[in-house]
Amino acid sequence: MSSSAQPLLLRALAGETLPRPPVWFMRQAGRSLPEYRALRETAGDFLTMCFNPEMAAEITLQPMRRFPFDAAIVFADILLIPQALGQDLWFAAGEGPRLGPLPALASMRGEIEASTGRLASIGETLSRVRAALEPERALIGFAGAPWTVATYMIEGRSSDRSGARTYAHQHPAELDQLLDILVEATSRYLVMQAGAGAQALKIFESWAEQLPEDVFERVVIGPHTRIVEQVRAAGVDVPIIGFPRGAGALVENYAEKVPVNAVGLDAQAPIALGQRLQKGGKTIQGALDNLLLRAGGPALDRRVDQLLESWGRGPYVFNLGHGVLPDTPIAHIEQVVRRVTGK
Amino acid sequence: MSSSAQPLLLRALAGETLPRPPVWFMRQAGRSLPEYRALRETAGDFLTMCFNPEMAAEITLQPMRRFPFDAAIVFADILLIPQALGQDLWFAAGEGPRLGPLPALASMRGEIEASTGRLASIGETLSRVRAALEPERALIGFAGAPWTVATYMIEGRSSDRSGARTYAHQHPAELDQLLDILVEATSRYLVMQAGAGAQALKIFESWAEQLPEDVFERVVIGPHTRIVEQVRAAGVDVPIIGFPRGAGALVENYAEKVPVNAVGLDAQAPIALGQRLQKGGKTIQGALDNLLLRAGGPALDRRVDQLLESWGRGPYVFNLGHGVLPDTPIAHIEQVVRRVTGK
Repeated sequence: MSSSAQPLLLRALAGETLPRPPVWFMRQAGRSLPEYRALRETAGDFLTMCFNPEMAAEITLQPMRRFPFDAAIVFADILLIPQALGQDLWFAAGEGPRLGPLPALASMRGEIEASTGRLASIGETLSRVRAALEPERALIGFAGAPWTVATYMIEGRSSDRSGARTYAHQHPAELDQLLDILVEATSRYLVMQAGAGAQALKIFESWAEQLPEDVFERVVIGPHTRIVEQVRAAGVDVPIIGFPRGAGALVENYAEKVPVNAVGLDAQAPIALGQRLQKGGKTIQGALDNLLLRAGGPALDRRVDQLLESWGRGPYVFNLGHGVLPDTPIAHIEQVVRRVTGK
Repeated sequence: MSSSAQPLLLRALAGETLPRPPVWFMRQAGRSLPEYRALRETAGDFLTMCFNPEMAAEITLQPMRRFPFDAAIVFADILLIPQALGQDLWFAAGEGPRLGPLPALASMRGEIEASTGRLASIGETLSRVRAALEPERALIGFAGAPWTVATYMIEGRSSDRSGARTYAHQHPAELDQLLDILVEATSRYLVMQAGAGAQALKIFESWAEQLPEDVFERVVIGPHTRIVEQVRAAGVDVPIIGFPRGAGALVENYAEKVPVNAVGLDAQAPIALGQRLQKGGKTIQGALDNLLLRAGGPALDRRVDQLLESWGRGPYVFNLGHGVLPDTPIAHIEQVVRRVTGK
């Protein structure tokens, strides 16, 4: 396939500057779409939907029918890995994820190899979506980053992560072991996804906030680096996007040290910082405020234009700085995608 | 008074590099101290304590008796200003602050001049503390920054600030007017505090997180700049510390544009970033993780040493990146203060 016939997302991730950036949105599938809400009413449990390839493929494709997004991202959850390693996981209505007690490290270590098999249905979802998706639209696989996943495993639920950050100070050796297990399981999971049809991979560090630099190096930069190295060592050469959300100024340390192809930026990232990353050889992705997307209006258009003008000349993937909020009007998503793509 | 007889804090804020940095902790007074908890049991309401100069002076001095801190900070609250402007304020047990409906802008504008008089008891607290405090120990006055105070005024309570950030996108003109009112009231309040004995002033922007750069410029950098200008225009020349907590990489924009003498850094601030601010002529203050202070142990000593070695050669004030947590062991505070001061 000639370079210009490649999906726009892959060209941007390869470092090409394009007439317009590719665009997709984190959480473009899911609760903001009425067709998802309708499906969910009949489908029942969230995890059932994640593990049913037919249903998960349908959910992945729903936003692709509605909007001219340049990429789909597989419908799954960052907490499937702890479950595959033996920690109980359930979703209480209106409460978000809940996890059972943290299993012994030795027990989880013994489950690493089997964990990838337990996630085989996610591979099946990817194969189905890849078969259904137009060739010019790319398919992204993903996993939660070890630190973010560990915060849920340690705290048992969504939280302000202060329990996990305290654990990082008080039990550094145990945390390092837990992160190592997650690095292994996550690397295998991502390799499996690439084999099943994912053309790019994304590592979601959703909770990189408030970590002191030395802890950030240990729990974010180290594990991300090892994942990329292990995925590459397995012969997988699809581009990898790292997203240390909330890393503040530490995103520059991240971009310098982690051998990802692209770095996701959150809504706070300064324009000049993104430009420095581009000059340093990274594609950047982000960073429209999801609250502004939901609010809409002329301020939304102005900010979209600013991001396009400031970052569009470097390798850039247009995206949000966080996921689409459930009550985001469809018309606002259309407004932005139209502005970016001209479609 | 010769320079070397000046309180260490003031020398550091004037840009001097010292044999050791001065040290104080945000929330050094308050719930982490048993003598505060005992007083609170008899004193009743939190606001009563803020507005009683005898009691507030006692609380301000409590940590000064226990620890060789180089500075005291007046016991007060960042939400006294909205109350003085006419918005109801109360503290529900275990729930934090609660505020009544936002008064009309015109009504609050009419209260600006009177608001400073309603806060006169804070000046009385400062005078009492200054009279009681040894001359080599400095006294700091403070106010909440307009954006942070506005988030409480808009949302009515502690929150994730997404309501206020949405308001910033949807009602920029109204927000600008509210911030202008707060700039006026805050400037007068700080001028009053300097007149009453505060030798340094601090502007607490506790919630600078997750603001896109253009919004940050508008709601943080602009109002802080105007406050410093107005305080200076009133003839007050005490040093001013600005603390945009959670500003991430945007703290560099802040340091470049806001004419404060010193910039507070949170626990996430990279070492190199602090050094850049020092080279740019700012004193920096921070940034020990309050969770690490609470956790204690050798990791705490190592991090204290790292901060001293990395930042101690520029103008530096040793502090936390956020307030002392209520359940922080006294022994850990002693451990750090001893390590910094040698006392």
